[in-house]
Amino acid sequence: MSISVFQDPLLKGLFGDPLVADAFDAERTIQRYNQVEIALTRGAEAVGLVPTAAADAIAQMLDRFVPDMADLAAGTVRDGIPLPRYAAQIKAAAGDNARYVHLGSTSQDIMDTALALTLMEINNAFDQRLVEILAKLSALGQAHGQRSMMGRTRMQAALSITVADRLREWSLPLERQRERLVRLRPRIELVQFGGPVGTRRGWNGHGNEIATHMAGSLGLSDPGAAWHTARDGLGVYVGWLTQISAALGKIGEDVFLMAQQGIGEIRLAGGGSSSAMAHKKNPIDGELLVTLARFNAAQLGGFAQSLMHEQERSGVSWALEWMILPQMCAATGASLLTGVRLLSAIEQMGAPEGTALDGAT
Amino acid sequence: MSISVFQDPLLKGLFGDPLVADAFDAERTIQRYNQVEIALTRGAEAVGLVPTAAADAIAQMLDRFVPDMADLAAGTVRDGIPLPRYAAQIKAAAGDNARYVHLGSTSQDIMDTALALTLMEINNAFDQRLVEILAKLSALGQAHGQRSMMGRTRMQAALSITVADRLREWSLPLERQRERLVRLRPRIELVQFGGPVGTRRGWNGHGNEIATHMAGSLGLSDPGAAWHTARDGLGVYVGWLTQISAALGKIGEDVFLMAQQGIGEIRLAGGGSSSAMAHKKNPIDGELLVTLARFNAAQLGGFAQSLMHEQERSGVSWALEWMILPQMCAATGASLLTGVRLLSAIEQMGAPEGTALDGAT
Amino acid sequence: MSISVFQDPLLKGLFGDPLVADAFDAERTIQRYNQVEIALTRGAEAVGLVPTAAADAIAQMLDRFVPDMADLAAGTVRDGIPLPRYAAQIKAAAGDNARYVHLGSTSQDIMDTALALTLMEINNAFDQRLVEILAKLSALGQAHGQRSMMGRTRMQAALSITVADRLREWSLPLERQRERLVRLRPRIELVQFGGPVGTRRGWNGHGNEIATHMAGSLGLSDPGAAWHTARDGLGVYVGWLTQISAALGKIGEDVFLMAQQGIGEIRLAGGGSSSAMAHKKNPIDGELLVTLARFNAAQLGGFAQSLMHEQERSGVSWALEWMILPQMCAATGASLLTGVRLLSAIEQMGAPEGTALDGAT
Amino acid sequence: MSISVFQDPLLKGLFGDPLVADAFDAERTIQRYNQVEIALTRGAEAVGLVPTAAADAIAQMLDRFVPDMADLAAGTVRDGIPLPRYAAQIKAAAGDNARYVHLGSTSQDIMDTALALTLMEINNAFDQRLVEILAKLSALGQAHGQRSMMGRTRMQAALSITVADRLREWSLPLERQRERLVRLRPRIELVQFGGPVGTRRGWNGHGNEIATHMAGSLGLSDPGAAWHTARDGLGVYVGWLTQISAALGKIGEDVFLMAQQGIGEIRLAGGGSSSAMAHKKNPIDGELLVTLARFNAAQLGGFAQSLMHEQERSGVSWALEWMILPQMCAATGASLLTGVRLLSAIEQMGAPEGTALDGAT
Repeated sequence: MSISVFQDPLLKGLFGDPLVADAFDAERTIQRYNQVEIALTRGAEAVGLVPTAAADAIAQMLDRFVPDMADLAAGTVRDGIPLPRYAAQIKAAAGDNARYVHLGSTSQDIMDTALALTLMEINNAFDQRLVEILAKLSALGQAHGQRSMMGRTRMQAALSITVADRLREWSLPLERQRERLVRLRPRIELVQFGGPVGTRRGWNGHGNEIATHMAGSLGLSDPGAAWHTARDGLGVYVGWLTQISAALGKIGEDVFLMAQQGIGEIRLAGGGSSSAMAHKKNPIDGELLVTLARFNAAQLGGFAQSLMHEQERSGVSWALEWMILPQMCAATGASLLTGVRLLSAIEQMGAPEGTALDGAT
Repeated sequence: MSISVFQDPLLKGLFGDPLVADAFDAERTIQRYNQVEIALTRGAEAVGLVPTAAADAIAQMLDRFVPDMADLAAGTVRDGIPLPRYAAQIKAAAGDNARYVHLGSTSQDIMDTALALTLMEINNAFDQRLVEILAKLSALGQAHGQRSMMGRTRMQAALSITVADRLREWSLPLERQRERLVRLRPRIELVQFGGPVGTRRGWNGHGNEIATHMAGSLGLSDPGAAWHTARDGLGVYVGWLTQISAALGKIGEDVFLMAQQGIGEIRLAGGGSSSAMAHKKNPIDGELLVTLARFNAAQLGGFAQSLMHEQERSGVSWALEWMILPQMCAATGASLLTGVRLLSAIEQMGAPEGTALDGAT
Repeated sequence: MSISVFQDPLLKGLFGDPLVADAFDAERTIQRYNQVEIALTRGAEAVGLVPTAAADAIAQMLDRFVPDMADLAAGTVRDGIPLPRYAAQIKAAAGDNARYVHLGSTSQDIMDTALALTLMEINNAFDQRLVEILAKLSALGQAHGQRSMMGRTRMQAALSITVADRLREWSLPLERQRERLVRLRPRIELVQFGGPVGTRRGWNGHGNEIATHMAGSLGLSDPGAAWHTARDGLGVYVGWLTQISAALGKIGEDVFLMAQQGIGEIRLAGGGSSSAMAHKKNPIDGELLVTLARFNAAQLGGFAQSLMHEQERSGVSWALEWMILPQMCAATGASLLTGVRLLSAIEQMGAPEGTALDGAT
Repeated sequence: MSISVFQDPLLKGLFGDPLVADAFDAERTIQRYNQVEIALTRGAEAVGLVPTAAADAIAQMLDRFVPDMADLAAGTVRDGIPLPRYAAQIKAAAGDNARYVHLGSTSQDIMDTALALTLMEINNAFDQRLVEILAKLSALGQAHGQRSMMGRTRMQAALSITVADRLREWSLPLERQRERLVRLRPRIELVQFGGPVGTRRGWNGHGNEIATHMAGSLGLSDPGAAWHTARDGLGVYVGWLTQISAALGKIGEDVFLMAQQGIGEIRLAGGGSSSAMAHKKNPIDGELLVTLARFNAAQLGGFAQSLMHEQERSGVSWALEWMILPQMCAATGASLLTGVRLLSAIEQMGAPEGTALDGAT
């Protein structure tokens, strides 16, 4: 057991998501800083603040810039963020063009915009996985939808339903959240641009133009103002992540309740073994989905504590985001991967043959 | 100090919101049950399942039905919900028409639809209060926007900004959340209709028609299926509530930081006194906004634990909703009321005369 | 559904605890203020700061003092706490002795000490209920302990155990927490005494003596210093409350899992009915115990956000305590009451006759 | 920004704790499994269930056993835990003595006992760090305790206090929590031993003897029964971790409030720089302490959701522990390291020369 189950050599097979791990990888994060700094330079070039030759040279440099990680690490301890040393390094690497680098910008502009790029990549993947899960649910409906099973309320047998009824409960929230993601993305995948105190002043009055230019070149939206202290977009996003893992958690919980001896409403391929009892087949993936849902639910409450950012930038709340948001992405990613695996393992759903289902037992 | 600060005779002046208290009042809740049962009867009449004369008689009876609260209270302990006894009481009151009352429906249909009506009333009020707050922010901008003040990042003086800059940070998230409420309401103010196991079967195949009819007469939307176990709409709603209290919490925190001796960037009318020190003027409302924001943030995490509803109805998760959702509405309502009061008390914003603001001090 | 399930006329039969409601009642809270002010006056008398005649007169007045609640309510909105107006009212009521009333003390001294008295009363009751629950568990062991049932791990049948084995899992944590309460009480039931900034200075150097005297007369402990900002005792206490509701939640969850059709390892008297399905018997109390446990777990996280009190007194964190602590006491109280009721309803435990339990099914 | 700030190459300088990272390292965890299996074998030898020669051979093998990590990783995905494959591997490695290996035990016995060893190591370190912090606080008192500063309540200047008064508020909760750790350790550093369904049956009636023997050889306590489902000890422990980070968070918050321009009650060596404003000195470590405290507070609520373990073992709740507990240890470790660093950086405390402190300003 490592500090992080998402990165533990043994546990990451359960809790990890290689795509999310890669998206938040430290070196890829630096590459995104490079990308954002290029976009900033090009934006400043577009409004005439950086000569084209300088912009070309800077872009070329940044495109392959590899930082001195030890210096960044040391700077991070001192400054609380890697950006001051990163900015110093790229200025040094820009030589005569140093004055055109990181022009008028602040750490948060670069780091938050890089985060938006990370989330864009993750959202693309999560959307695809949702499509896959919805397709599997649809296929299960085709295969077993007409079969009967017991509808259960408050943990007691109630009335007979069909497998299709249960599957509809599983898919509807996921369908709605998938549609919601489409609407939410432009409010989350945002360029951050404001300068030291977030006013977009400076740049000879071209702040908004540069921001729009940056957004365009990075595939992001421009909200029209800095959001240094306005984290409402991220707040909506972590809510969305929690909804995904909760919707999959419900599937997981239903599955292991259906798999109980004496109930037997589902047949799963595989299933975990026990070090003590060879006969057991544990519905591991169902449990894992509930664990991940409860984890995200708890993190959501923690993230919400970070929504207030005092004054023009909050070191306290911003760092709390870094502690929680990536983990919520990772847990949701694992939840989606586990959901695919669990649904793929369902060989049969519905009441065992010969069960009387009229009224409740 | 009562169990609930929202209802304590002394503390409710700070933490309470009369409108939310009234909206969740037990007797008004029963009146909403009556309203929903009328809508159900009318819906069933519309599809020919209840004769018009019977529907008229039932509607007339329900319109003024006052339950035996002691019997409901006793039933609630036994059944976990008031509905079984409520349904029994209205059937008894309907006499010969008893068989047309609560037709094919289940407790959750009535209780959740009544909740949707409660939230509709609350949303109307919250929307108005947001309008009022945004107007006050705008007026503050008119009055003080051009003044300078110190922009502060990471609790340190950074660069000079204008009061208008700070006010923009305060209003933008509230404006966005107000627009969001408009979009969200149709996904939250929903008729609940599904019958015992949520399938909308029964009613001779007219389930969807009845639901649509009910939604229409109650001013709600029909999501096209029961949401007994799909609480994603409520999950989005509590996220919205948390965003409102967080956005107001940031204002509160900024205010009491500005009001510190040695900073002096705001002048407030009134302010709390102390039992020990007559000279003190405590920025009570600013603190209260932060308290309410932290409270809602914590509750959001708790609500998220209730998002998973196993099988066709979860007694555990449903009851957890009842414990948390009304409180979040109350805290948000108090937050909006406090926000109005605090903004009204601002007499001046901006750096004290004669402060040097160029660069940081 | 009221804002607070603990006080709703219908739901309080499930969620409420009359004893906790009474302990936190606003008027009883004022009586405790009176009690604490008497103890303060007597303490000051003991060190010679208040003449005996004055102390007698003040004590006599306070013993039957009934405040002007409307004035207190209005003051609370203005001051953030009821104490400044309360202190003003008792000073007015003391006439010529006014200068000896609330001597050198501050709001937090009175309010926190009153809270300690409230918790003392609650702890007495909770301890008795734990004794009752442990006795019921013991009786169940006597009656059914030798019977076999299926041991289940990871929601799958594992190996046969005895009912006594399961009962031991239920009682051990409760026994340990009961012993823990005995050790914890002296660290929670504490006099608060420090004066305006918590230093215990003033009182001509007799601060510590007065505190010790007050503690003695009130049945509390004196920690030797003010704890205005050091809420570690309360933090430990809410952890304890959460442990109680979690230990009872496990019992509740086990019960409703045992009560499932197809499992049938428990027989309960009573059980909730349904508005739609007369045949159902819902294991209401088992579910309620899990709901209460999840509620407390969420509140614990919220309370923990209030542990940091900046400078010499935090309005933000103190008020957050008021919002959460009484509710956690109420939920724990309801949990204990529900535990008693659920255990009393168990008519039989153990596998149904004729079940083969060797190895897993 | 990696998924985990504790392990990110750049951020771990702020958020990481090398000692905690090492204590939870996957390979060291396997070494602890080896240690626990040795203790089990020696315990079984002591009661005559394993011949001494076999026990010697097994111990020798385990002492240097290095697992096939790829096989463990694959097994973990399938089984939900690494133990089934680990047990299979050590049995294979034991050759003819395989039947004496992992004798009668279950995965949870090994994994939880290994966790107890991990926590023992962490507790040793945390205790030392607390000693160091208390010494630094004492030294600050020696150096600056007599100086005056403004006592502040509810974010407003109240009355003059001494630096020693403030330092006392900082140290008392830490002192109490340090004493508490001593008392808690025997209730947390526990051997886990129960076999497949936690009954300690099997082993020819020698279960308790083996457990006691194991505890003795590992330096742990034996609670006298398995705690597969009774996680109260861990629940108390995470509460303790939260108290430590909260007590240090209060110090951090006070420091950055004291460091504000216009207040100036503290002088710190170093301080973070900004990528935009060379003149700024950000009180990074103070902010970090608050971030870590808020993180732990949120995790505490999440952990509390894992306290209920249904039936004889809960896959859901156990895995939720793995997600949260190590992070709380890491955050607390970082908090202690940051606390040492911050206190070491304090060059002066107290009001700036010439400030009038009588009454409030």
